[in-house]
Amino acid sequence: MSGAPQPDLDLAASLFDALSRATRRGRGIVRDSYGAGEQAAHDILRSAAGATALEVSVDAIGNLFMTLPGEDRSAPRIIVGSHLDSVPQGGNFDGAAGVVAGLCALSALRREGVTPKCDLSVMAIRAEESAWFDIAYLGSGGAFGLLDPACLSIARSDNGQTLEATLTSQGFDPQPIRERQRLLDPSRIRAYVELHIEQGPTLVGRGLPAAVVSGIRGCKRFRNARCSGEYGHSGAVARPYRRDAVAATVAFLHHMEAVWLKQEECGADLVLTSGELFTDPAMHGPSKIAGETRFVLDLRSLSDTTMESVAAEARAAAARLGAAYRVEIDLGATSDSPPAVMDTRLRSRLMSLLDQPFEMASGAGHDAAVFCKVGIPSAMIFVRNGHGSHNPDEAMSLEDFAVGTRALLGLLLEFPL
Amino acid sequence: MSGAPQPDLDLAASLFDALSRATRRGRGIVRDSYGAGEQAAHDILRSAAGATALEVSVDAIGNLFMTLPGEDRSAPRIIVGSHLDSVPQGGNFDGAAGVVAGLCALSALRREGVTPKCDLSVMAIRAEESAWFDIAYLGSGGAFGLLDPACLSIARSDNGQTLEATLTSQGFDPQPIRERQRLLDPSRIRAYVELHIEQGPTLVGRGLPAAVVSGIRGCKRFRNARCSGEYGHSGAVARPYRRDAVAATVAFLHHMEAVWLKQEECGADLVLTSGELFTDPAMHGPSKIAGETRFVLDLRSLSDTTMESVAAEARAAAARLGAAYRVEIDLGATSDSPPAVMDTRLRSRLMSLLDQPFEMASGAGHDAAVFCKVGIPSAMIFVRNGHGSHNPDEAMSLEDFAVGTRALLGLLLEFPL
Repeated sequence: MSGAPQPDLDLAASLFDALSRATRRGRGIVRDSYGAGEQAAHDILRSAAGATALEVSVDAIGNLFMTLPGEDRSAPRIIVGSHLDSVPQGGNFDGAAGVVAGLCALSALRREGVTPKCDLSVMAIRAEESAWFDIAYLGSGGAFGLLDPACLSIARSDNGQTLEATLTSQGFDPQPIRERQRLLDPSRIRAYVELHIEQGPTLVGRGLPAAVVSGIRGCKRFRNARCSGEYGHSGAVARPYRRDAVAATVAFLHHMEAVWLKQEECGADLVLTSGELFTDPAMHGPSKIAGETRFVLDLRSLSDTTMESVAAEARAAAARLGAAYRVEIDLGATSDSPPAVMDTRLRSRLMSLLDQPFEMASGAGHDAAVFCKVGIPSAMIFVRNGHGSHNPDEAMSLEDFAVGTRALLGLLLEFPL
Repeated sequence: MSGAPQPDLDLAASLFDALSRATRRGRGIVRDSYGAGEQAAHDILRSAAGATALEVSVDAIGNLFMTLPGEDRSAPRIIVGSHLDSVPQGGNFDGAAGVVAGLCALSALRREGVTPKCDLSVMAIRAEESAWFDIAYLGSGGAFGLLDPACLSIARSDNGQTLEATLTSQGFDPQPIRERQRLLDPSRIRAYVELHIEQGPTLVGRGLPAAVVSGIRGCKRFRNARCSGEYGHSGAVARPYRRDAVAATVAFLHHMEAVWLKQEECGADLVLTSGELFTDPAMHGPSKIAGETRFVLDLRSLSDTTMESVAAEARAAAARLGAAYRVEIDLGATSDSPPAVMDTRLRSRLMSLLDQPFEMASGAGHDAAVFCKVGIPSAMIFVRNGHGSHNPDEAMSLEDFAVGTRALLGLLLEFPL
């Protein structure tokens, strides 16, 4: 690739530095969705785009577009994007890395005098995190008219202001959301590419700087599972007479781990987690058999079929083990989000652009899932990151960022595929 | 047994009725230890003993003795006893049944003009329940000088008054407790017999009216067990990188259930319970891997050896599974109480006095454990009872009570064995 345009890493370093200085509050980063922190990040990126002589525009709900015009301005464009908001006390790279990567790539093309075939836009997306308004993908979902207008009355978690009032006070317009109006036409978007830090430890564990994302896992979550047995004296009730909610829940969850292992052996993509599990503090006791537990069972996979089959197995096991332990295991309803499989051709192009090609699923959701949902060929690049995300200790090196951003730039240079 | 003295069941019915009327508060029974409820019960029993022409005395800490004098008043006596206090909102029979049974037996002997070889005393024991002063066996432990004098400063759970102040205000004397002074000399007690409702469902399940108690299980309790892993994103962290505290705890507790089953197969007496288990509500979340759990593991057995070996297996499994799941399972220290095995000869005599002989362990503690501890040959009779104890729904029938009380009376008539 010698002679080929290289991403502008000095620009990246200065942007990450500026973002950190403007939005750090104590140890962590605070870029509140549709608030001062997110706006400060938008201002920094917008100003850098102006300095790079990109076209700048903002849509009605605040998404920022920074565009390098193509030869054929009427051709469907390519969007490189990610979000600029963060969770409270988050890190500097979750979201911002993708926007900075896009800007560094376009800056390199501009500097080298490359004119792409179609418009290339970096989209700084609003409000991807659900931490502030208890709904994810406000910016990308709103751009495609996908939001339930009822979301306008969701109150911000910290100050209680509704989304509608917040949008208005920031100079944006809730009207398109109220009318489910599309601000972006999927048929006018050729592809969407998003670079993001990995939010798990896989790349650190494998010693790889970057990966191609195969897809974003869907989620099927039993949010309100409950096991109902009977409280009793821990010494005085023999095993055949127990209706022990903890023993039954333990047997159920242990069985589900075995189901997971079996799915993995068969090559299925799956993660399975019970992250909340508790007896009732008002009723339990050290010398009591527990009469109730509540727990969450969270299934995620790239395959709807896998999730359906594991959920069916969970329901069957709940019935079977509930009977065996003389309790009722009521898993309750699931809340579901579908998987978003990334575009096969884009994935394979990206794989060929990595020196150490590696493909992995994303367990967390990303705006790319929204673009995928409306039928736009989408791709994602993960960059190695220590300590997970949504905390001040995110650790992405500029070297790894460069590896991911070079693949991104390489993909842009290869269009049309 | 025709012609042999029969327990006075009319007296039993009237006493249970009087106790219920005097100490019912709303749905449940309230006989607060060293309080008005317990005293009301003592007054009722004392008055009945007087009407039966038994000798009545009260020791310095309020235990009530109702004695049928024997031929040889200098011979060691036999004590039939149980407690008259209850937990808050308890039932009418837990404790009181044993005192009423003793009185019905002595009343029958008195009515038939039987003079026993030695004194037979019914002991209405104070403050067996730990609900009020957070210490069990105040009355029996105090009678044998076994209490730590520091217990005098324990505050009553409802009104905050110390045990010392409570004793004094009720006209009793804290001095023997302060000086660890014995009020009863174990060498002057030939045997102790206690009838008590079963606090579990075994007799209901087996369709038996009464049982002989083989012993009172000891307890070895890991009160503050804790599993420490690492919080993570439930979608984004692959299995090999997880440090999932719930998964590890589930594997550990499921293993311990298997250990229990194996012990049962080998004929060991054991119950094993985790009655408290919880992730941290301040940190857990439906889309998080849990970084911590806390739980209790309660082991009970008639055999110290069994408890030691199961506790050792628990520690080994905690280390092994902790390593396998990349977490730390710290079981912490145990709090221990030793088992109290009932007297072999008394057990076998009682078995021969039941039409359907059946022997079982007591999982809950009883005053008999204290008598056993000071070396007095002790025995217990369980009477069938529905719905467990420590709640207003205790359900013992007078017919079943009669079966147990007849065995008690039969044992008294057979002394010397």
